[in-house]
Amino acid sequence: MDKINKKKAIVLLSGGLDSTTCLALAANLGYEIYALSFDYGQKQNYELELAKYNAEKFKAKDHLIIKLDNSVFQKSALANQNIEVPKDGKVPVEIPITYVPARNTIFLSYALAIAETVMAEEIFIGVNSVDYSGYPDCRPEFIAAFQKMANLALKETVENKIKININTPLIAISKAEIIKLGKENGVDYSKTLTCYDPISGKACGSCESCRLRKKGFEEAGIADETIYFE
Amino acid sequence: MDKINKKKAIVLLSGGLDSTTCLALAANLGYEIYALSFDYGQKQNYELELAKYNAEKFKAKDHLIIKLDNSVFQKSALANQNIEVPKDGKVPVEIPITYVPARNTIFLSYALAIAETVMAEEIFIGVNSVDYSGYPDCRPEFIAAFQKMANLALKETVENKIKININTPLIAISKAEIIKLGKENGVDYSKTLTCYDPISGKACGSCESCRLRKKGFEEAGIADETIYFE
Repeated sequence: MDKINKKKAIVLLSGGLDSTTCLALAANLGYEIYALSFDYGQKQNYELELAKYNAEKFKAKDHLIIKLDNSVFQKSALANQNIEVPKDGKVPVEIPITYVPARNTIFLSYALAIAETVMAEEIFIGVNSVDYSGYPDCRPEFIAAFQKMANLALKETVENKIKININTPLIAISKAEIIKLGKENGVDYSKTLTCYDPISGKACGSCESCRLRKKGFEEAGIADETIYFE
Repeated sequence: MDKINKKKAIVLLSGGLDSTTCLALAANLGYEIYALSFDYGQKQNYELELAKYNAEKFKAKDHLIIKLDNSVFQKSALANQNIEVPKDGKVPVEIPITYVPARNTIFLSYALAIAETVMAEEIFIGVNSVDYSGYPDCRPEFIAAFQKMANLALKETVENKIKININTPLIAISKAEIIKLGKENGVDYSKTLTCYDPISGKACGSCESCRLRKKGFEEAGIADETIYFE
């Protein structure tokens, strides 16, 4: 009588190190994967090509790329070509300008719409609150509040046909541990791009994201697979 | 020292009866209005023209129209030209097919991004849980959960610079009361469109939304200003 396939999962996939690790994990857990990427005019448009590569490699049933109206994101250095990405390596005293307002809220809201459409209960998002940039929407309390809201938002959740779980397998582990986990699950990190300001699809090596990633490979004792510009 | 203008409000404005009433209320409460509409390939594209008219009439400081990738909404009769809108007037036994997955969640998420960008604390949404179609994302418990999540999601809320309030002035009143309120606040309902299936910008008169609206005018004892096709 139960028509719900409990093994479907929506995986938010940017093409970066964390989300690709998440995809590999979900795939190896046996979920039928619906990968979900966003094209919001981000500087890292090579990321989307890598997302496509990995969605195929990890045998996603479908890979949706949703085009976002980037007028919403104009204040952020990540989407706005006129703002310089900081590369001074200073530890930010507050949440940095690479922060995009309500980004994960918007991304998860779309994931919710897809989840209800395909009747998936699991949503995977590669947020991390250890080696991260201090974004508020990467913290466990945000994720918990989103999940609670999600289960009040949908026809299928309110009618108790599905229950949304936001899975954050990377939230409490270090970048080094993420990289080890990814390697165990078959990730080729040369096919991921985390850089805030890539040049011709290659990592700049000096932005905050590149620094965190380099440090992660060092601490993991794994040769850095990242393709750098220089 | 406080640089925050507490009088800014984001108003979700579809161009329908409820959201236009909400706009009029917020305007008469003295807020500086940032109207926010979405173009998601809905059948009622005349609605957006009416939204523009009313944003201007009620002196919105800005009116943003965000284009949404409507592939997310394909399952719904409201966005999909191939699904017939029900017009039999039967009371739905469950949530009807005019329901769009996670619609208010996505709309409010964008409102949140705008709120943080312009440093607005107030978001107005014209949801109603009395004379409505049973959508789960119109209920007070959903709104409360969204507000809680919102205040954990943003840089400016986490740093206690703003606190997001989701205002739902219409949530607990009848359609007749909404119409009376709108008239008191200067709404011209001939310049709103609520119909699920309008013909040349005119209301069909027979879909569920038209029926609720007609009944509202009758109960309010106010002449129906709606422009019907026939």
